[in-house]
Formats: sequence, structure tokens, C-alpha cells
Amino acid sequence: MDNFTFYAPTYFAFGMDTENQTGEYIKRFGGRKVLIHYGGGSVIRSGLLERVKKSLDAVSLPYVELGGVKPNPRSGLVYTGIDLCRKESIDFILAVGGGSAIDSAKAIAAGAVYNGDFLDFYEGKPVTQALPIGTILTIAAAGSEGSPDSVITNEKGMIKRGATGEAFRPRFSILNPALTQTLPKYQTACGVTDIIAHLYERYLTNTVEVEVTDRMIEALMLTMIHEGPRVIEDPDNYQARANIMWAGMMAHNNSCGVGRSQDWTSHNVEHELSALYDCTHGAGLAVVMPAVFTYTMTHDVARFAQIAVRVWGCSMDFYHPEKTAKAGIEALRHFLFSLGMPRNFEELGAKESDIEKLAHTACYGNGENGTLIGFMALKQKDLEHIYRLML
Amino acid sequence: MDNFTFYAPTYFAFGMDTENQTGEYIKRFGGRKVLIHYGGGSVIRSGLLERVKKSLDAVSLPYVELGGVKPNPRSGLVYTGIDLCRKESIDFILAVGGGSAIDSAKAIAAGAVYNGDFLDFYEGKPVTQALPIGTILTIAAAGSEGSPDSVITNEKGMIKRGATGEAFRPRFSILNPALTQTLPKYQTACGVTDIIAHLYERYLTNTVEVEVTDRMIEALMLTMIHEGPRVIEDPDNYQARANIMWAGMMAHNNSCGVGRSQDWTSHNVEHELSALYDCTHGAGLAVVMPAVFTYTMTHDVARFAQIAVRVWGCSMDFYHPEKTAKAGIEALRHFLFSLGMPRNFEELGAKESDIEKLAHTACYGNGENGTLIGFMALKQKDLEHIYRLML
Repeated sequence: MDNFTFYAPTYFAFGMDTENQTGEYIKRFGGRKVLIHYGGGSVIRSGLLERVKKSLDAVSLPYVELGGVKPNPRSGLVYTGIDLCRKESIDFILAVGGGSAIDSAKAIAAGAVYNGDFLDFYEGKPVTQALPIGTILTIAAAGSEGSPDSVITNEKGMIKRGATGEAFRPRFSILNPALTQTLPKYQTACGVTDIIAHLYERYLTNTVEVEVTDRMIEALMLTMIHEGPRVIEDPDNYQARANIMWAGMMAHNNSCGVGRSQDWTSHNVEHELSALYDCTHGAGLAVVMPAVFTYTMTHDVARFAQIAVRVWGCSMDFYHPEKTAKAGIEALRHFLFSLGMPRNFEELGAKESDIEKLAHTACYGNGENGTLIGFMALKQKDLEHIYRLML
Repeated sequence: MDNFTFYAPTYFAFGMDTENQTGEYIKRFGGRKVLIHYGGGSVIRSGLLERVKKSLDAVSLPYVELGGVKPNPRSGLVYTGIDLCRKESIDFILAVGGGSAIDSAKAIAAGAVYNGDFLDFYEGKPVTQALPIGTILTIAAAGSEGSPDSVITNEKGMIKRGATGEAFRPRFSILNPALTQTLPKYQTACGVTDIIAHLYERYLTNTVEVEVTDRMIEALMLTMIHEGPRVIEDPDNYQARANIMWAGMMAHNNSCGVGRSQDWTSHNVEHELSALYDCTHGAGLAVVMPAVFTYTMTHDVARFAQIAVRVWGCSMDFYHPEKTAKAGIEALRHFLFSLGMPRNFEELGAKESDIEKLAHTACYGNGENGTLIGFMALKQKDLEHIYRLML
């Protein structure tokens, strides 16, 4: 296990009706004037936004609103939010929505107190300061409610990049599983896929002897395999929603990723797809993961065999561990398909003719000197091969 | 899953040599005059205390020392510490040691800012204020380095009681697995047993559909089963020590205990033994757990069968699940014995003639109106039966 530090000071209020205490939580964490940041229709239609505003009114907290966050959130709205924060002397940002609303709120929070272009943080500058953030989560997926991460698409060139910093950890996050019950099945399945990807990205490590985090990742994976199909079959299943919601947070607050190198190849390979085709991140990951794992499996067959046996219930072929490793990848592929996820470029709306461009941007945009560093070091030719496996 | 809140804002610095940054961490978390609180010989003999003091000197942090904490830490030394804090205007307490040093430090931290007897907190008063605490952990066991809990023995009547409050969460905890390498095998095994007990206490729940926390508890249990024997066989195995150390913290910071009722019968039953005979808490738990589980198994056979299959690798007897449940308890018993733990009253130094007294104190001291409430509601007669199973 490698040396590490771990600090996750987000306050979680979990369960039915917890959103009605939003105003009190903002006050407890020092907010005096709030920007409420959200996406579009469903937050309004469901009445959630009204309830939240009522909760702020009840404790006499003034606020301004900025809606309109889109999936794969964009730089344009972030600039609008930063201007609004400065003009209105905002000192607390409340995100209401999923990973997109939260990530956009994080970008605004960092930009509002920064004397420069907020995109600097998405090109490698560490985030050391930001306005405090609170979240009300409406989809279990990105894990941004408990993480120090944010992903934004720069509209100049449609480039999707991440930023990280402890200042991005929300002060509080309100997790009411019932708020996710109105999600369409496809969005729910995309969220489940994203959570599974966060687990694989941590599982695929080059660090040896990390049994405790291996086991924790497997535990969260097994939870997703148990609860995913239940919630697709019955979207009103509060208990399944609750288990997925806590698993989604735990999968990405990094308590199961500490002390070990991590992968993140699948996320980097996917970000090029959702930046170019504006597909849902989880759907992109469903197509990307089996391809990436098929290509990188030979780098550590034992690791893929271990997850196949411990998580996917495959029998170990002791004489041919690579067969077990492959069976685990096939089990993942079938599982994602059973949830309604796409399987290939065509179902995702991606084009074969873009492969060279996708591979080039992936390794030159995210990589170092044209090499994408993760579980394996991958060059453009490797990435082209991986994208071809998605056809 | 039940509604819950979760807040675990301890900063963890994990790995080799991390204790050399102690001074910097105390400064970062606002300390200006420190009480260094520790036990006895090993912290001094190993040179750890000297290194810690050097680290405080390096950042010009003044400190006073209070050593002499004993296992099953006592109220007498807490009063001394409280007086010392007031006299010396201490504003930060650094515990160097295991659960005893940390729990004693927590009691001092609460007492120093309280206008009354600190024991009030150990008789049910919630801890809302305390001096900030930092820890340097020297044994993976109690989980107090990341928990809001403390246990103290009141020397008047030798009564062992717990207190809880968010103010008891350490500001930072330094976890260097190498510091645990000098522990005697018996102490190491006691720590492993305590961690396993923290997991069982959370696993045995009356809340339904808590798959995510079930799986997380099982993950940490599997880690202990894998790493426990490795570290007993080779005390210098840094990697095994590291996995146990993170598992020990995760087992008790409550991220795997949220949203579900918990048991704590074994801890309550054990506290009477270590209060009366001054045995090591983990050793007491090794004797207590199989007895408690044998008695409470019929309350939920499926739960005991589940842990038997998923954790202890027992085959499920689908026609006689109670046989599987029993096999899991036997597997636990054999595992603890293989680590060198005692199996019965005699090996623990406890006396059959005390059983009535032990059972009475357990249910009237910790219980409500003579009933100990946990996984099951237990009366004095039940507890006498349980203690008899330990003969």
C-alpha cells in the first residue's frame, strides 16, 4: 500500500424528506447569500425546487437562481454563474441535480474567487480556494456529492476536462433516494454504469497487496449487481435506490481508492465520446469499458480473474486464468446490456470515421507527451485499437 | 434503510514516517499549546515519543506531557489531565498510543471545557464540546482514531462506560503501520478481534434491505480473515499491518454502519469482564462473541447463515440454514483461537461465581429498566445463560 492522505469532511443527510432542512444546513455551514444552481425541467416539475426555496425562505436566507445546466456541463454557463456570484455577492452555492449541476456549481465556486479564467483549473492548476458548496442529489451516478472532482466541457473545441481539489468537497450533501424515483430507466441505468466504472477505475491498480480496498470495491460492485436490476425492474423501489445512492457516494469519495494507483483510462476514453457526440457519460462508459478491459487484460490477468471470481461469480479456471478473466469482462458486458445500455459505436451514435481523431485527442489532450497513463501506458495506436473494439 | 446523518471530518495521514509531520498537523488544525497524552513503556522505548516531540519543537509548538494511561483507561488519570489542561492553558490534545490513550484523551478534551464532572458524559450526556484532538495510532483495534466514541472505567466501582459525540472525532489521525510492528503477537491478535467485533456489532441488525453496508462489513471482515493470520505469522509484514490498519478505521468510523440498527451486545457483555478482571478488551471479546451469537442466532438465522456463507466460506445448507449459521459461529471461534485468543472463562481469568453479578451489572448498568437492548432484548436470565456458555 502506498502512503496517502484522506480527508472527506462532507456532512451527509440521508433519507426521506431531508431536503426540507436545506436552509438550516446552509446556515450551519456559514452561507448568507445563496446561488441555487440547477438543470431544467424535472427539478421544477417535481416540485423539488419549490420545496428547497421554501426551506431557504423559512430561515430568511436570500438567494438568486441559475438554471439551465445541461448534461456534460459547459463552460458558457459557468462564466454566467461566476459573473452572477460577483454581482450578487454570493457566498454559498447550492447545486440541485446530478453530477452535471454539481460539477458546474464547483466550477462556478472556484471561478468566483479566482482572478483569472476558471478553465485554468481544468488544465491542471490545483483548486485551493472555492466558495462553499452544498448539494441536493437527484441521481446516483457521478459521486460528485462527496468527491473533490469536477468535469466541464470547454465549448471552445468541445474539450471535456476534469479538475480536482479539496476545496471542491461539498460542505453538505442531501441524499434522498426518493428524489431519484422519477428518473427514466435509461438515466438510472447510466448512473449505475457510472458507479461501476468508478469502481473499476480504482480496482485496476499496479499497487500490490491492497486487499482492504480491493474488498471494499468488490463489496460496492456486488451491491450494484444486486440493486441495479431491482431498480430497473421497479423504479419506485426506495430500498434499492437507497443502497445504490450510498454505494455511489462511497464508490467515489475515495475511501476505497486510497493507497493504490488508479486507472481512469475508461473515463478518459469516454470523455472524448461524450464531448464529441454529447452522449450520456454512463452510456458511453458501457461501450468503452468492455473494450478497454479486453485490451488491457493481458497487463494483469490475475487481477481480472480475481474480479471475475469474486464479483461476477465466475468459476476459476486454474489452468487457464485468462479464460476466467475474459468471462468476467463478458459478464460485465451482459450485465450492462441487461440494464438497457448500448453495446457499440452504432448504438451510441458514434462514427468509425472519427476514431483517429478520438484516439489522438485522448492521448494528446489527457496524456503526457502523447501517452495516456493509467493501468497501462497507451499510445495513439493502442487507443485506436480500443475504439475499434467498440464497433 | 433508515434515515441517517454521517459526518467524519478527520484528516488521515497514512504511511511510513507520517508521524514526523505531527507538529505541522497540530498547527494546521489550530493548536498552540499541546498536551501529549500516552501510556507507558513502548512509546518511549521505541523512540516514538522523542520523534514526536522533535516534530513539535521543529515548529516551535510548546507542550506538556501526561503519560501513564493504562489499558481499560481510568477516571483518575482523566481528572489529572483535566487539571493540567486548565493550569497550562492547553488548547490541543495529542494522543500517542492505542484506543486507551485516545479514549483517555477524548475524556480529558471534553472535561477540560465542561463545568462539571466529565463522567456525566459517560452516563448519557451528549458530548457537544471538547478541545480538539489529534492522534498517532500505535495499534489497529479500537477504531477510536476515526470515531466519535470513548470508553472509560470509573474507578469508583470499576464501571466501564462509553460516551459519544461528534466533538470526539479527532481533527487528524496519523496512521503509520510500521509503528504497530513492535506489538507483541497477543496484543496484535486482540486488536484484530476488536475490529472483527466492531464489524459483527454492525452486521447484526434488525433493519431490512441494507445490502450496501452488509457488503462493506463483509469486505472488511474478509480483509481481517486474510491479513490477521499473516501478521501473526510475520509481525514485520508491513503490508498486512497496513491493510489491517485501514480496515480497523473503516470498521468503526461508521460509514458501514449507517442507516441500520446495530447490536453492541458483545461489547456490553465484555465491558463487565474487562472492568472486573482487567483483561484485554479484545481477549474478552474473543470469549464473549461465540457465546452471544450462539444465544442470539435463533433471532435471525438467515443473517447468521448469510455471514457464514459470504464471509466464512461455509456451504449453504438450504434445507437446514441453522446448521450453516452455526458453522459460521464455529468458524469464528476457530479463527480467534488460531490467532492465540482465549476460549473460555478459565483462560480469561474470569470466575463462574461472578456470573450473577456480571449479568446483573450488564443489564442494569447498560440496559434500560434491566433489559439490555441490542440485536435482541436481553434480561438478566438471558445474560446469565450467555455468560454460562463461556465456561
